[in-house]
Amino acid sequence: MSRHLQRDLDQLKKDILLLGSMVEKSINNAVLAFHDRRPELCEVVFSDELLINDKEVEIEQECLKILALHQPVAVDLRFIVVVLKVNNDLERIGDFAVNIAKRAIYLSSKSPIACPKDFSHGMFQRIQTMVRGSLDALVKLDVEFARNVIAMDNEVDRVNRQMYVELQALMMEDPSTVDRAIGLLSTSRYLERIADLATNIAEEVIFMVEGEVVRHKEEV
Amino acid sequence: MSRHLQRDLDQLKKDILLLGSMVEKSINNAVLAFHDRRPELCEVVFSDELLINDKEVEIEQECLKILALHQPVAVDLRFIVVVLKVNNDLERIGDFAVNIAKRAIYLSSKSPIACPKDFSHGMFQRIQTMVRGSLDALVKLDVEFARNVIAMDNEVDRVNRQMYVELQALMMEDPSTVDRAIGLLSTSRYLERIADLATNIAEEVIFMVEGEVVRHKEEV
Repeated sequence: MSRHLQRDLDQLKKDILLLGSMVEKSINNAVLAFHDRRPELCEVVFSDELLINDKEVEIEQECLKILALHQPVAVDLRFIVVVLKVNNDLERIGDFAVNIAKRAIYLSSKSPIACPKDFSHGMFQRIQTMVRGSLDALVKLDVEFARNVIAMDNEVDRVNRQMYVELQALMMEDPSTVDRAIGLLSTSRYLERIADLATNIAEEVIFMVEGEVVRHKEEV
Repeated sequence: MSRHLQRDLDQLKKDILLLGSMVEKSINNAVLAFHDRRPELCEVVFSDELLINDKEVEIEQECLKILALHQPVAVDLRFIVVVLKVNNDLERIGDFAVNIAKRAIYLSSKSPIACPKDFSHGMFQRIQTMVRGSLDALVKLDVEFARNVIAMDNEVDRVNRQMYVELQALMMEDPSTVDRAIGLLSTSRYLERIADLATNIAEEVIFMVEGEVVRHKEEV
């Protein structure tokens, strides 16, 4: 591999990690806004979203430039294609952080309803660990990290399903909670989608390292 | 451009169109299963999903092969990167068709509730037109087609928001409808997400043809 290609790939790694940390910050702010009822944090999420979008466009341009200039093959080519997909996934995670923030504004303007215990305790931390873990797996090409992320997704799915069960029961018992319960369900679903995207990233890493397509194995 | 590259790009176009028609078929079956309460159609959606997943993996491999073999530049390189992203989007649309089918099975096992009028009349046809239009735009590189798709997305968003308003009112008035109303809301949201992905595809086409990044312009 040429020295110039190596330098450009190193820069690309730094940039995708930077985008990852921007997205992590947005998730944290959105979750804090929701959990601590601090709608003022949402403004930060909204303005950071613009920076995330710009960074996504910049990284895509960088990938195109590397492909055109260096015409990489084999493992380098595969890495760039994975970065293109991860770039897309991270930008979508940023969109979900914005959606959570919008719900947080609405919910903090209303009196709170009982939130299922598993949700606030386990879910937030698990999501953050998954996003961080998927990015670590990507830059270190670490398959073990990636498998840990994938293993965590089942528990997130379980909590999300449990939210549906408990909040449907609440709405039927006390119809005045419907709007807030729907808001909570949406928040839960956005978090579950973030976990899915982190899982996507982890699966891409495994594909890149082992050439094994993991991503459609559990879907039947 | 070499004759071999041209031949491989033509094949790639055919394959992405084929994947598109597989995904269209799944949307149609899922929507029919929902609308006509025909859960037996869902089995087709579930088995077609496996074929869609295989096709997505095949197209990605094809893109990698073309990049490695022909090392295309400029407009050809950009086309392949767009196909990689569209490939991903189509597979996600297939996932949403599966989600709609799962809801259709549940909903058709229960007695029906009143469905907001706009939903069944306008929404389904609009979604199908958008998916078809985005693929036409891609293979013909037709920016007008692409702009038409983008213009239709606002109306889908409006109907989806209206669903939330009407179904929340229904749940508060008659709490026994909660489970079915939640099922309808999910179906509406999946359709809205399909429309978003068709819009993504259309935006990618405009980016490819005009070099203009449309996709983050309307999000503030």
